[in-house]
Amino acid sequence: MTILHDDVTRAQLNRFGQLRHFLTLEGLGREMLTRILDTAESFIEVGSRQIKKVPLLRGKTVANLFFEPSTRTRTTFELAAQRLSADVLNINISTSSTTKGETLSDMLQNLEYMKVDMFVVRHAQSGAPHFIASRVCPHVSVINAGDGRHAHPTQGMLDMLTIRQYKQRFEGLKVAIVGDIQHSRVARSEIHALNTLGAEVRVVGPSTLLPPGIEALGVTPCDNMKDGLDGADVVIMLRLQKERMDGALLPSEREFFRLYGLTREKLAWAKPDAIVMHPGPINREVEIASDVADGSQSVILPQVTNGIAVRMAVMSMAMSGQIAELTADDEV
Amino acid sequence: MTILHDDVTRAQLNRFGQLRHFLTLEGLGREMLTRILDTAESFIEVGSRQIKKVPLLRGKTVANLFFEPSTRTRTTFELAAQRLSADVLNINISTSSTTKGETLSDMLQNLEYMKVDMFVVRHAQSGAPHFIASRVCPHVSVINAGDGRHAHPTQGMLDMLTIRQYKQRFEGLKVAIVGDIQHSRVARSEIHALNTLGAEVRVVGPSTLLPPGIEALGVTPCDNMKDGLDGADVVIMLRLQKERMDGALLPSEREFFRLYGLTREKLAWAKPDAIVMHPGPINREVEIASDVADGSQSVILPQVTNGIAVRMAVMSMAMSGQIAELTADDEV
Amino acid sequence: MTILHDDVTRAQLNRFGQLRHFLTLEGLGREMLTRILDTAESFIEVGSRQIKKVPLLRGKTVANLFFEPSTRTRTTFELAAQRLSADVLNINISTSSTTKGETLSDMLQNLEYMKVDMFVVRHAQSGAPHFIASRVCPHVSVINAGDGRHAHPTQGMLDMLTIRQYKQRFEGLKVAIVGDIQHSRVARSEIHALNTLGAEVRVVGPSTLLPPGIEALGVTPCDNMKDGLDGADVVIMLRLQKERMDGALLPSEREFFRLYGLTREKLAWAKPDAIVMHPGPINREVEIASDVADGSQSVILPQVTNGIAVRMAVMSMAMSGQIAELTADDEV
Repeated sequence: MTILHDDVTRAQLNRFGQLRHFLTLEGLGREMLTRILDTAESFIEVGSRQIKKVPLLRGKTVANLFFEPSTRTRTTFELAAQRLSADVLNINISTSSTTKGETLSDMLQNLEYMKVDMFVVRHAQSGAPHFIASRVCPHVSVINAGDGRHAHPTQGMLDMLTIRQYKQRFEGLKVAIVGDIQHSRVARSEIHALNTLGAEVRVVGPSTLLPPGIEALGVTPCDNMKDGLDGADVVIMLRLQKERMDGALLPSEREFFRLYGLTREKLAWAKPDAIVMHPGPINREVEIASDVADGSQSVILPQVTNGIAVRMAVMSMAMSGQIAELTADDEV
Repeated sequence: MTILHDDVTRAQLNRFGQLRHFLTLEGLGREMLTRILDTAESFIEVGSRQIKKVPLLRGKTVANLFFEPSTRTRTTFELAAQRLSADVLNINISTSSTTKGETLSDMLQNLEYMKVDMFVVRHAQSGAPHFIASRVCPHVSVINAGDGRHAHPTQGMLDMLTIRQYKQRFEGLKVAIVGDIQHSRVARSEIHALNTLGAEVRVVGPSTLLPPGIEALGVTPCDNMKDGLDGADVVIMLRLQKERMDGALLPSEREFFRLYGLTREKLAWAKPDAIVMHPGPINREVEIASDVADGSQSVILPQVTNGIAVRMAVMSMAMSGQIAELTADDEV
Repeated sequence: MTILHDDVTRAQLNRFGQLRHFLTLEGLGREMLTRILDTAESFIEVGSRQIKKVPLLRGKTVANLFFEPSTRTRTTFELAAQRLSADVLNINISTSSTTKGETLSDMLQNLEYMKVDMFVVRHAQSGAPHFIASRVCPHVSVINAGDGRHAHPTQGMLDMLTIRQYKQRFEGLKVAIVGDIQHSRVARSEIHALNTLGAEVRVVGPSTLLPPGIEALGVTPCDNMKDGLDGADVVIMLRLQKERMDGALLPSEREFFRLYGLTREKLAWAKPDAIVMHPGPINREVEIASDVADGSQSVILPQVTNGIAVRMAVMSMAMSGQIAELTADDEV
């Protein structure tokens, strides 16, 4: 685990300790996370300008490689790239020549030789972006847009940005993450970031959806909402993957909502100024009641704005780290 | 009806009477229609330049939201946006997360919080763009790209631009609109504009396809081509929706062509210098004979050029109206 | 044949002998091919810049019309167009209104009147791009991205660029093209270019896949690899279309590999410094062994880089030829 940790850290930083890929929040220190948040903060201002564009990625090509479909996440990465002035290629993997018997590795090498500068990768398999990052040539950066159950680091960071905006700190904050923890890459990324930044994390859900041994990640598991939300500053609801309903892991939708759905009554257990978050898209009346999702404590929509800013931040930082290393290599 | 009329007028103009959304031609006065035509006229020149681009929407994001597929109309809006230097997002609604149980309203709010500046909406349901415009935040403009049987206002305006180019006036012009009036949003938009601009309108088609009481819109219904085309300055043929052939509303394709298809013989009933228009795509030998579609009186292809110019005009005008209002709000 | 030859030459050059469309290598002289290679050479440098963009097609619209799907080729044309600063329209033909009964010719005329400047055409039917080029208006250039079994001229030229990079000459070079010659548009384009540039060409494959009378094209047919590769400077492997396996034309995949698959053993028959090429995507262990595809003599990936440069070259040259002619027409 430590070895993997070190490997991954090495994999996403260049020799100067700058971001060069963006694969996971695991192993990134407080200073780096803060730098990402500060950079993202500056891009929020860009989004409110008349001309929402900066030339940081001008003349660069970003390829969106979505092996798992996601209109929402792809759209936010596309917007972020456009606002950095990059050229964007959307490659629909299912219709590409991987179906003609070409290997994934051949496809990626082809993109490298087309001088694509950045791969934004979503993949159903945990570790796929790391695998790709470990093999690409020096002029490509890889951004993880969600891999299997492993990580969704841009989601994790947009959540941190949102918490910082509303709470101005992480130290001592009580954060409850609620739902299907077991299968959630979002939860995993949030846990790493919150631990690093000094918040106290509880994970709340039916025991069938709490991975055994999760305490090792430094969180407190909780199988009921009353204890989980008690005195919380932040409540993060996860999206319920309805396809898991069929199996034995989950009670019925109605039963899930009764026990773990966020209603005004349950929210009252948290602090009066607690904020409510959700990665979206939301299932109304499944994991969250409409009046809470649309209520005054909800910051679900500001999260969306922050998502663009965070994606602009990690894309521009990874590109800078790539260029710094290429330049240093050239000088040798 | 009057109330709706006023509502809609209010809905698409800002407090200074400028265009802010573009939803329908109903309720827009002669001055506004003329301003749109004049603006479009200036964009025709842009289309003939070596560099077909103006920076009016630079740094703005336009989202094409096509709930009903239409390659042709989507392409013209995409081109218009590109030539205004906007960034364009094409969102394929059927594959987006609305299918994951997300509500339409949630999806639109997400796009707002991504700081999208303009929604171009095509929808099978009449009124959908109005509904959306009535709910969006102040920094989004909505452009109707065709809704149900209700309106297709950019098509209406490109037709007006074409008529003005060839006839230099509207007052006293006799315009015949031929085909399935009942189901045509194109006809409805044309009728509103022609009435406002002072032309005389006849609607021609089998009585099953002429809505009862259509005289109330200020047009003359006519169930035969001889009377309908007699002395006409402009003949607008509508596209026949072949899927309606199956029902009882329409005779066979061959019978329709015999009675209402525009042939050289029937065109001879119009003025010798009458122009022939069609919104496209045309069904040759169904609603129009090939030699007429390709003949010297046809202005079907110039309509296409005008379509880009009109779309550039309403997009840039709606953006100006949005900015004017936002600026005024800021000053308060 | 000579007449076709002359027609096609006329079709793709303007009256000043400049490229105006790019349809086939047949009939293009050594000087023109060299000019294309020199232009492409200059664009390779652009691909290695920090800002991989030149403004040559700024304000121009390029429409990718792929009647036959090909993610790879479409992507390279899209990238080339973006790096020339063009606006790109990807038109998915199967979902466009050609399915609504619109004729191809009507669809193309519509694009002309939308002021699209360039059509990049891939079509399953041989001659389709010529047909289109012979009918478009003076402000549209047509680039053939592969038509039936006829031609794939940008692939042909990227192969020439690659050969020139590694061999610095064409005169006296022995080039072996191996595989399904009969059905290959790639082979046909390569043969024309290599003949014109002075190389000696052998085509190698089972006799069922060597078109009868191919000697007339100035090549030496060969039904075994030993003779075909003997002393070769360049070995070009073709992609095996697996769908042809079903018929009687081809032995089994395994048998094909045994007889014609490029292994290290067979490659040893060529010159020690021979280069190995393939248009991609490769079928590993079908037409080429993995250790050869990834080996030191393989230049398959540099071909990909050259593909972007060649596409930028022919697009910018055809646009210049178009503008030169339009300007001259204006002056008349």
